[in-house]
Amino acid sequence: MTEQIVEQDIAAEVRAITDRARRAARRMAGANRAWKDKGLRAIAKALLEHQDRILAANAKDLAAGKENGTSVPMLDRLTLTKPRVQGLADALEKLATLPDPVGNVVRGQTLPNGLRMRQINVPMGVVAAIYEARPNVTVDIAGLALKSGNAVILRGGTAAAHTNQALLGILRDALETVGLPADAVQSVDQFGREGANLIMKARGAVDVLIPRGGRDLIQTVVNNSSVPVIETGEGNVHIFIDASAKEEMSVNILLNAKTQRPSVCNTVETLLVHKDAKVLAAVLTALNKAGVRLHVDERVQAVLPAGITATLATDEDWATEYMDLDLAVKMVDSLPEAIKHIRTWSTGHTEAILTNDLSNAEIFVAEVDSAAVIVNASTRFTDGGELGLGAEVGISTQKLHARGPMGLTELTTTKWIVQGEGQVRG
Amino acid sequence: MTEQIVEQDIAAEVRAITDRARRAARRMAGANRAWKDKGLRAIAKALLEHQDRILAANAKDLAAGKENGTSVPMLDRLTLTKPRVQGLADALEKLATLPDPVGNVVRGQTLPNGLRMRQINVPMGVVAAIYEARPNVTVDIAGLALKSGNAVILRGGTAAAHTNQALLGILRDALETVGLPADAVQSVDQFGREGANLIMKARGAVDVLIPRGGRDLIQTVVNNSSVPVIETGEGNVHIFIDASAKEEMSVNILLNAKTQRPSVCNTVETLLVHKDAKVLAAVLTALNKAGVRLHVDERVQAVLPAGITATLATDEDWATEYMDLDLAVKMVDSLPEAIKHIRTWSTGHTEAILTNDLSNAEIFVAEVDSAAVIVNASTRFTDGGELGLGAEVGISTQKLHARGPMGLTELTTTKWIVQGEGQVRG
Repeated sequence: MTEQIVEQDIAAEVRAITDRARRAARRMAGANRAWKDKGLRAIAKALLEHQDRILAANAKDLAAGKENGTSVPMLDRLTLTKPRVQGLADALEKLATLPDPVGNVVRGQTLPNGLRMRQINVPMGVVAAIYEARPNVTVDIAGLALKSGNAVILRGGTAAAHTNQALLGILRDALETVGLPADAVQSVDQFGREGANLIMKARGAVDVLIPRGGRDLIQTVVNNSSVPVIETGEGNVHIFIDASAKEEMSVNILLNAKTQRPSVCNTVETLLVHKDAKVLAAVLTALNKAGVRLHVDERVQAVLPAGITATLATDEDWATEYMDLDLAVKMVDSLPEAIKHIRTWSTGHTEAILTNDLSNAEIFVAEVDSAAVIVNASTRFTDGGELGLGAEVGISTQKLHARGPMGLTELTTTKWIVQGEGQVRG
Repeated sequence: MTEQIVEQDIAAEVRAITDRARRAARRMAGANRAWKDKGLRAIAKALLEHQDRILAANAKDLAAGKENGTSVPMLDRLTLTKPRVQGLADALEKLATLPDPVGNVVRGQTLPNGLRMRQINVPMGVVAAIYEARPNVTVDIAGLALKSGNAVILRGGTAAAHTNQALLGILRDALETVGLPADAVQSVDQFGREGANLIMKARGAVDVLIPRGGRDLIQTVVNNSSVPVIETGEGNVHIFIDASAKEEMSVNILLNAKTQRPSVCNTVETLLVHKDAKVLAAVLTALNKAGVRLHVDERVQAVLPAGITATLATDEDWATEYMDLDLAVKMVDSLPEAIKHIRTWSTGHTEAILTNDLSNAEIFVAEVDSAAVIVNASTRFTDGGELGLGAEVGISTQKLHARGPMGLTELTTTKWIVQGEGQVRG
């Protein structure tokens, strides 16, 4: 076979997958909440029953990863353990307790001509996800898509291929045991990169595409997809300590925002501090004690407390999402200067101000154009669970459709239903 | 200069335009409703004051269009007259009476830890529109974007270049008279097709791109844009007459849906009729009398009332959005067959069922996956004005962000605002 014929074959197979997904999506859209929850619970049970099979498959991926010299953090994200499988099952059980977003009435009224109009949430249809070698995402995104009445097509990282294949089989079998369509969860992993490319171009066949992973993956999907994309995750997060900020609050919030879980997107990456703030020494001392490496501008360098060392920051530091125990620190003359810095370098995820000045708090909230703007609290609260959404699909950093923490509703669209008794337009 | 240098220059100029748009967007976001409405009224007044200038510019475009052999419908869409300019001014006055979508609280609560959370509508930021030679769109989309607190970048058809340039100058001057930024309305028309290409690739600098026009224009934008797009307009609309449909209602609705304004997207294009429906002859007779050309399948051909002629339909008829006094007609054996036909050929805009069978109405509403699903009323009601949205940005046929009629709220995004007194995450 020539290469071209192989490509045509793959295109035909991916089309067959999207066709099956569309049919499964129609059946999922017709399933009520009780039925979908039964499916989620069946998957949770099956994951625990088959955890030896999952861990064996995962061991193969891990062995291959070690052989290929995969980095330790990447191996960690690839690793499943009994407690982690239990965590996946628990998350599905929790998902089953949440309200169903489908059927919710967004707005409705009886029009002057007697037409009854309502706009309701309905499933998106076919959701696709492209993600890196984190097998937990396979279960996580499938659960969220199913709960909201969708079919899902997955493309996980090649490094997790054995684990994902095992999980996929377990998910599909579990759905069938409760009479839901196995094809509500499918994968294009068998087609490698070409499968991902075809999914990105399947506008009309795939209703929304969610990339999950690092900056490169997300940018590749955004630039190459004709399917609508929801961009998630990148967070170059700022905290501005205003002149009036209180010391204890500033120390607590900075410690929490930087050190509680440095590897996630809502962790702070740059601290901006007003030149008249009285709290800088205490904050830097506490961060230094907690093992945070400081990257500071010259003005901060000049006032570093004794015994604390720091490297001099460059523009690269202002742009970097460290996702580690590193923090860039810059002194500013004013609130407008802080806002200007944020506008230049922020990814629009989360920014916070620590202040006791009401007017400054209001200006910051109004003028900082990010998904979440926080006053006097940790940036770590930008999280669907913390903000009461129940489940979190991701944190959108785009403005269309969803912005900030996304819940189940963001995996639905709407339908306008109009009922009359013969009305025509005048 | 080499061609490459020219291209680099254009790229730099378009970047300067998007930068100015961003700064203007920040000022617009800070303008309250009264101020924005003052701007809309100033534009309305200026359009009327300068209508001679507008009509003179329009005459140039029309003369060039005639010389180039532009079709009569396209020339009509290009034409401005005194009543049409009055219509544009009236629409802006009406827009000024509508509520401001900005600041509306989407949801809010006090969390268990005392954090006050609210999600509010904020302007999208920089909105771009690419459209064909309809100068009314220039005023229309600018008004909607300004009312919702955005800056807008326009790319109109080259055939309307003189008219658009005159309108742009009038809009910008009027904004300045009330202290709003002229750069809230800009154009890239001077850069021709390259301007459109650069706007489509300006992800981050442009927040949303709205193509308005025919299928080819929309598909070009969808396929080439890395900026999030809202797809609008294409409507291959179906009406299904069920066995139990009543005659008078069926005749009235079909006449209204096909003949009241055949050139718009919510006009019916295919009639599906149940084999046991008693009303077909009356409906076809009325449509024929109203000048509708029928494209029918063989079963309908076999029962055509005496004196009515029709052409035999092919697959092309099922796929076609005629936007004219043409209607495809097909007989089906059952509701599922009607739904299957709709799934195959519909663009997901609007479909209606005419029936007295409650169960069939419910099945149709549940299983037809279109932006609007109508029971016993004309498809012409899929319209922002008719459904109570006040103003209409367009009718979205995609599922992300907006589906069906889009109002001012769809030109906004949201921002999460979290206020605390030192809370950290446990």
